Amino acid sequence: MDANSDGRLWGGRFSKAVDPIMEEFNTFIGTDRRLYAVDIRASQAYARALVGAEVLDGAEAERIISGLAQVGEEFEQGDFEIKPTDEDIHTAVERRLTELIGPLAGKLHTGRSRNDQVMTDIRLYLSAQIPPLRERVQGLQSAIVDQAEGHLDTVMPGFTHLQPAQPILFGHWLMAFFWKLQRDLDRLSELEHRTRDCPLGAGALAGNPFDIDREALARELGFSSISENSLDAISERDFIVEFLSWAALAQVHMSRLAEDLILWSSPGFAFVELDEAYCTGSSIMPQKRNPDTLELIRGKAAGLIGRLTALLSLLKGLPSGYNKDLQEDKEGLFVAVETVFTSLTIAAGVIRSMIVNVERMEQAVGISDGLLATELADYLVRKGEPFRRSHALVGKVLRRCGARSCRLSELPMDEYRKISPLFEPDLKEVLDVRAAISRRSVPGGTAPAAVREQIRKARAKLRMWDKPHRQQVI
Amino acid sequence: MDANSDGRLWGGRFSKAVDPIMEEFNTFIGTDRRLYAVDIRASQAYARALVGAEVLDGAEAERIISGLAQVGEEFEQGDFEIKPTDEDIHTAVERRLTELIGPLAGKLHTGRSRNDQVMTDIRLYLSAQIPPLRERVQGLQSAIVDQAEGHLDTVMPGFTHLQPAQPILFGHWLMAFFWKLQRDLDRLSELEHRTRDCPLGAGALAGNPFDIDREALARELGFSSISENSLDAISERDFIVEFLSWAALAQVHMSRLAEDLILWSSPGFAFVELDEAYCTGSSIMPQKRNPDTLELIRGKAAGLIGRLTALLSLLKGLPSGYNKDLQEDKEGLFVAVETVFTSLTIAAGVIRSMIVNVERMEQAVGISDGLLATELADYLVRKGEPFRRSHALVGKVLRRCGARSCRLSELPMDEYRKISPLFEPDLKEVLDVRAAISRRSVPGGTAPAAVREQIRKARAKLRMWDKPHRQQVI
Amino acid sequence: MDANSDGRLWGGRFSKAVDPIMEEFNTFIGTDRRLYAVDIRASQAYARALVGAEVLDGAEAERIISGLAQVGEEFEQGDFEIKPTDEDIHTAVERRLTELIGPLAGKLHTGRSRNDQVMTDIRLYLSAQIPPLRERVQGLQSAIVDQAEGHLDTVMPGFTHLQPAQPILFGHWLMAFFWKLQRDLDRLSELEHRTRDCPLGAGALAGNPFDIDREALARELGFSSISENSLDAISERDFIVEFLSWAALAQVHMSRLAEDLILWSSPGFAFVELDEAYCTGSSIMPQKRNPDTLELIRGKAAGLIGRLTALLSLLKGLPSGYNKDLQEDKEGLFVAVETVFTSLTIAAGVIRSMIVNVERMEQAVGISDGLLATELADYLVRKGEPFRRSHALVGKVLRRCGARSCRLSELPMDEYRKISPLFEPDLKEVLDVRAAISRRSVPGGTAPAAVREQIRKARAKLRMWDKPHRQQVI
Amino acid sequence: MDANSDGRLWGGRFSKAVDPIMEEFNTFIGTDRRLYAVDIRASQAYARALVGAEVLDGAEAERIISGLAQVGEEFEQGDFEIKPTDEDIHTAVERRLTELIGPLAGKLHTGRSRNDQVMTDIRLYLSAQIPPLRERVQGLQSAIVDQAEGHLDTVMPGFTHLQPAQPILFGHWLMAFFWKLQRDLDRLSELEHRTRDCPLGAGALAGNPFDIDREALARELGFSSISENSLDAISERDFIVEFLSWAALAQVHMSRLAEDLILWSSPGFAFVELDEAYCTGSSIMPQKRNPDTLELIRGKAAGLIGRLTALLSLLKGLPSGYNKDLQEDKEGLFVAVETVFTSLTIAAGVIRSMIVNVERMEQAVGISDGLLATELADYLVRKGEPFRRSHALVGKVLRRCGARSCRLSELPMDEYRKISPLFEPDLKEVLDVRAAISRRSVPGGTAPAAVREQIRKARAKLRMWDKPHRQQVI
Repeated sequence: MDANSDGRLWGGRFSKAVDPIMEEFNTFIGTDRRLYAVDIRASQAYARALVGAEVLDGAEAERIISGLAQVGEEFEQGDFEIKPTDEDIHTAVERRLTELIGPLAGKLHTGRSRNDQVMTDIRLYLSAQIPPLRERVQGLQSAIVDQAEGHLDTVMPGFTHLQPAQPILFGHWLMAFFWKLQRDLDRLSELEHRTRDCPLGAGALAGNPFDIDREALARELGFSSISENSLDAISERDFIVEFLSWAALAQVHMSRLAEDLILWSSPGFAFVELDEAYCTGSSIMPQKRNPDTLELIRGKAAGLIGRLTALLSLLKGLPSGYNKDLQEDKEGLFVAVETVFTSLTIAAGVIRSMIVNVERMEQAVGISDGLLATELADYLVRKGEPFRRSHALVGKVLRRCGARSCRLSELPMDEYRKISPLFEPDLKEVLDVRAAISRRSVPGGTAPAAVREQIRKARAKLRMWDKPHRQQVI
Repeated sequence: MDANSDGRLWGGRFSKAVDPIMEEFNTFIGTDRRLYAVDIRASQAYARALVGAEVLDGAEAERIISGLAQVGEEFEQGDFEIKPTDEDIHTAVERRLTELIGPLAGKLHTGRSRNDQVMTDIRLYLSAQIPPLRERVQGLQSAIVDQAEGHLDTVMPGFTHLQPAQPILFGHWLMAFFWKLQRDLDRLSELEHRTRDCPLGAGALAGNPFDIDREALARELGFSSISENSLDAISERDFIVEFLSWAALAQVHMSRLAEDLILWSSPGFAFVELDEAYCTGSSIMPQKRNPDTLELIRGKAAGLIGRLTALLSLLKGLPSGYNKDLQEDKEGLFVAVETVFTSLTIAAGVIRSMIVNVERMEQAVGISDGLLATELADYLVRKGEPFRRSHALVGKVLRRCGARSCRLSELPMDEYRKISPLFEPDLKEVLDVRAAISRRSVPGGTAPAAVREQIRKARAKLRMWDKPHRQQVI
Repeated sequence: MDANSDGRLWGGRFSKAVDPIMEEFNTFIGTDRRLYAVDIRASQAYARALVGAEVLDGAEAERIISGLAQVGEEFEQGDFEIKPTDEDIHTAVERRLTELIGPLAGKLHTGRSRNDQVMTDIRLYLSAQIPPLRERVQGLQSAIVDQAEGHLDTVMPGFTHLQPAQPILFGHWLMAFFWKLQRDLDRLSELEHRTRDCPLGAGALAGNPFDIDREALARELGFSSISENSLDAISERDFIVEFLSWAALAQVHMSRLAEDLILWSSPGFAFVELDEAYCTGSSIMPQKRNPDTLELIRGKAAGLIGRLTALLSLLKGLPSGYNKDLQEDKEGLFVAVETVFTSLTIAAGVIRSMIVNVERMEQAVGISDGLLATELADYLVRKGEPFRRSHALVGKVLRRCGARSCRLSELPMDEYRKISPLFEPDLKEVLDVRAAISRRSVPGGTAPAAVREQIRKARAKLRMWDKPHRQQVI
Repeated sequence: MDANSDGRLWGGRFSKAVDPIMEEFNTFIGTDRRLYAVDIRASQAYARALVGAEVLDGAEAERIISGLAQVGEEFEQGDFEIKPTDEDIHTAVERRLTELIGPLAGKLHTGRSRNDQVMTDIRLYLSAQIPPLRERVQGLQSAIVDQAEGHLDTVMPGFTHLQPAQPILFGHWLMAFFWKLQRDLDRLSELEHRTRDCPLGAGALAGNPFDIDREALARELGFSSISENSLDAISERDFIVEFLSWAALAQVHMSRLAEDLILWSSPGFAFVELDEAYCTGSSIMPQKRNPDTLELIRGKAAGLIGRLTALLSLLKGLPSGYNKDLQEDKEGLFVAVETVFTSLTIAAGVIRSMIVNVERMEQAVGISDGLLATELADYLVRKGEPFRRSHALVGKVLRRCGARSCRLSELPMDEYRKISPLFEPDLKEVLDVRAAISRRSVPGGTAPAAVREQIRKARAKLRMWDKPHRQQVI
């Protein structure tokens, strides 16, 4: 019996069946099933290209194209039945097409290899994910800007090293994340460009021998260029690496937002209260309302770091040409797309629905008036003392306060003057939180006017993508 | 309406439903389904412990235990239906138990938390995987020893830097992998010990308040010790890190075996021919017989490196106590167990079934008689020349050969003697491959006697685990 | 001119100089300089072994051994001058030895290769690091136990998800880290064993042809076994992978301790105050006292995760036999040893010197009496209500408290009784923090008696390593 | 005594000295020394900005600027002496400036923090590295194009799965790497843009309170924009993550080039011979000429993967605001810049100097005429047989050849015709290597015309950067 008859695409030369455990190991259909729609679309376009190359006549192409449409329909409806010998999505589709339209199906793969086919599929898949991802990034950005706008007078302690540093506006804190996401958006647009390079026509590695029109094929599939070297086209996975790098960093950004919010919804801070819709309880402790969603966003950043590591390590030192190791590229990609998409969506919900505890923040600023120590040093600077010495003098003031267990504003003036005669009664004015904030009015500073300007620029960025020129880019 | 009534274990305090997207994000039932059997077993043991603690009476415990058995049966039969509110395997089992036996089911979770429950489950799961994994490691070791034993006279070029270095026995090359696996085995036994520490009774984080007998509970579940600190018990994942480290290194070992075999089944070497059962073909190139299986073994090593990275990165800087990030620990564990298990099985099949091309190897040794240059240097050493100078003199011999495009054995004696008068006609004797091999008869060397001794020791190692004392260890 | 004359060990065959940039790239002397002492020791032992193999006579060996001693002396004194052609420590030592004792130095490398030499050096280096590392782990453990012992009556909120969960003892929290370190210690002892396998005599890859006594050599160098396969011996780096895994996990443990302490020295918690000796200030904000040390301990965990990833990725798919890629194994090892050693030392100092703010912790427990909600549920359980229903009822209690903005202990009895008639005046007794803690007296629980027992066991563990049998282990 | 007097920038408030071991741990001066020039340049610009803000008068600024110039000179000359209390490069420079010009130096830090200062330094450092890196990428690209141009008639086996697949031109193989590098170049230009955003003026986290002109400052330092949010500016490290991702992928590209060349200089292939300038020998085997350089390029890819992993893991979950963990960002950056730069340089040298063994490649194609099996299948396609069936028929042909141990071109015509009557005597024409190659003339294919076109496009890309508009971009 012909080994080929068991349905494999490549059985002709083989005289033996494969070891069953190896079949399972080798098979990838479970994960790459989600490529069915792009696989079918690419095959339909390829059938048309084969007409141009005179491999198919028009009627044959029609039968293949409508057969493929039916296969797609079956997937859509959940009726498609995967068989054990369906190694991958390409094999499954061709097998089913053969059942539907007979041996003519066997003409479709002319001049094409699974090597260029799979890269075409993945590129179509990923290009299609980018606009929705962009929209979700912007969804989170919008949520941030909207919240920030309501908090141009809400003061909070700014932290470095998790120690109170200087007072800032809550809106300023929020906006810090807007700009991280804006860089994510910029990078996403750049990598999108590189996903749109069409490998179809690269064949197994050496190019297509049937002289198909690669440019037309690329245009039909919505690509913007064709790959320049067939060997490179089938062995590189650069755009996937680039996407995983993007996803890992975007998720790391969200993990830092999550970390801040987890801290701030902890009772020691109590700056915000998360909406119950984003919390879960405990199976044993009835009082619990845990920020699980944020913890998962944080935890999944680790997962994406691992996926990126894995792909780079996979590619390192791989000989050129297709190697089966490359099959392992897809799962990480799918996980990354889905994780980032969901995390962005959830983070936007969290930001929009959280309750901001304005009083608690203000209180926290009040408690540690060490937050204003820099103001005191700057005060001396304005009176002519070099900053480095001012810093040291304020250090002495703080030690004096420590010794007396009093606050900066409570230390008697004569104590101040013992440390420096430059201290005068007007120093009380600098020990004002809102004044300290307003002083930082340089662009990018935390003064209300500067934050308002930030928000204006941010809204302009958000509007950029609403325009029709978006169509042209994609 | 009571939010609790939607089936969540923890809804009591909550007045709102969760965001649906968050539900999906938070839910883990898909992956941890494979814990059902250990979850049920641990719950049955816990029910018995609650009798001891006088929380349940004997009849109640009986109903719970047999109800749990029925839930297990449903899973076994594939009849268990997961519901959308089944957050995880624990929730699913308790929900179904409640349907089967009513509110009594609600007594099972007394004093227990999902925090100690899940750790108990994972530990039971992993301990149960270790003996089959060990058996597969030994299966591959046996395949190696059996092949090696047949090749105590098969010479091949030993390589360093992928350049021919010195001749070795093929059996010696094979045995190099035996010892890597032996270290894997040693480490597996050591970590097994650490999986067998029972966390049940740690509660949410502070310990069990119903005074259950933790020692008895641990014994009943087959553990060998109990965790010493409840907070540590629910927040650590050390044994998973350790297992992933183990799995990554074991897979890296197999990736190196795979690399060698991929090279050696490439026509430039053609030292071995892989059985068709472990190859696949090409969708476009009929002549292809690709070592896909080995490439996947190699590629999946990258995946496991990524999983290890992810878990360590997940744990880094995590506050003590349970955090939801920890949910992400399980998928990597399951993938690691399954990948290593399958790879070991396949690698053993590959080794046992491959055809060794003895002539090609011997030929390859013959072609590059530079392989014997060290012998020539050692020859001079034996005549009293310091090795460093001998090395330099043989360098000159090689350059002379290069200039004449001849082999070491073809260079005329007078040319040799121009380089050093110590060269005498007996030098021809050292230019013999088998003699060179036999000279390396120190323990661990490639001489047939030394390899035979290696194999003897290896067989003794393999026998160690056949004995009844294995029961005691596990 | 002979290329060899430029001082390279291997120049004989070469007719051209290397590209200067490549020289720099290839050279490793900077980092592996710290191997000089073990390299010299191993060479001295090897010289003695060459006497046994009749390659050297006793006088020659003496001259070599004392020449090596002098080279060691020069390193010790900082007088050793590295030359540009000293590729690595082995080359540097042999070059200098030649300068000191002439061509006789050239006999030392007989039958030996840098491949087995470097592995011998690294193994000697790492074995020597393990006892001091162990001592530092125990130093941190001692600091923990000593602090814990003083806090068997200090209550604090136990957290999960960074939300208050149940009250625990501060000593219990501390002891959680003791056991993590104890597992680190166990793993360290196990891997130590695997560092003590002597590769010397493996030669380049095929074994030593001069019939040296490998067993004697191993014994002299303090190894406990010899490698069983020469090819494996020179191409494996398992013990380094294992050590980096160990180091990464140990550092992750410290990163979690650091995280907790960073949180708890933040004013929102203010549970502890770090000693100034472990803080730094700010260049601009005079009030700052930042927990820099702890942040570095946390940050360096990321660095070690990267080092482990790098080594595994380096080894993945590497052909057997020595490949130059392996040179990259050492830097990560040195960094790991030094990072963990210093971090352990510092962490012990931090723990010993920190001020514990007992009142703040007690206060924090008081504020969130939701911490006692589990007690309330358990109270109902003890009155016969199934736990799951008790949990739901307490959820209602909490919502009632929320609506009235009162605490559990403030809710009027009739409100309680509206929720369940099982609530009776004795419920006030369960709302007692210390009673709640004492109830968790199972082994490993947070009750004072249980923590005292933990400490007793911990001290016994610490004593185990003080005994003379330590000598035997090593 | 004032702790401040020991030279620390921040000692004022402190009453105790730091633990000596912690000093070493905390200190970063060794690595960040290479930032001295940019640190000084940024400080000089900042001094001018302080004149605008009326903190300094012109004469003061002049003294500071020339004092800084002198400090720079000392670094340049190697005269700068690092002191134990010089925590980092910023501290070292300010300390020395104070020695040179007295307390006036203390005015320089007014309104500035090390938090915005260090980011300014790193951004200046990295922007300055990008043009030389770009030039090295292009240097390697040029070497590739030059070699490729000489090999438009050199045939070699194209491999997939390291098995012969289809014949290709050696020039085509080379060009595959050109395009990988071209993508590296594109990404490098994009990220360059993001390095050029000026954080100076962000202060510690809240912005500069002295109303300096940030735009002017940015322009003076050659930046193209200013950071929009001070908190984001000091806590993000996105451009470093992006650069490490770039470097890791670029190095992975080179690792694949290295892998191919290592294989092809191994005697089983012997397609190329590396120049001795890029090889090293063995300390024990005189015949060795090892491709060490390429192995290091490959191995160092693993190192960069680890560095990327480490930075992402470092950032994951870090609270916003500066945290000391971030100090660990720099070493990886420096290593990445230097590794990629050197590797590119060396790879170009290897490509330019290697000897291409045209005969060996042609021979290798001849040996496995299975390489032409696809041609045979395409032949049947051209006669009307569907490809899938053609593939199966050629499978039978190959099995027949296998049984007779003959090549495709040696199988008698009647055997062919037994398999399919479509086989006719003209089939011999398709079994021609050069014809097979020429058939793949679609864009990107391996036909000589197509490769020539590739080279034309490649040269155009290389010329793009020679133009004066380069100045504008940078």
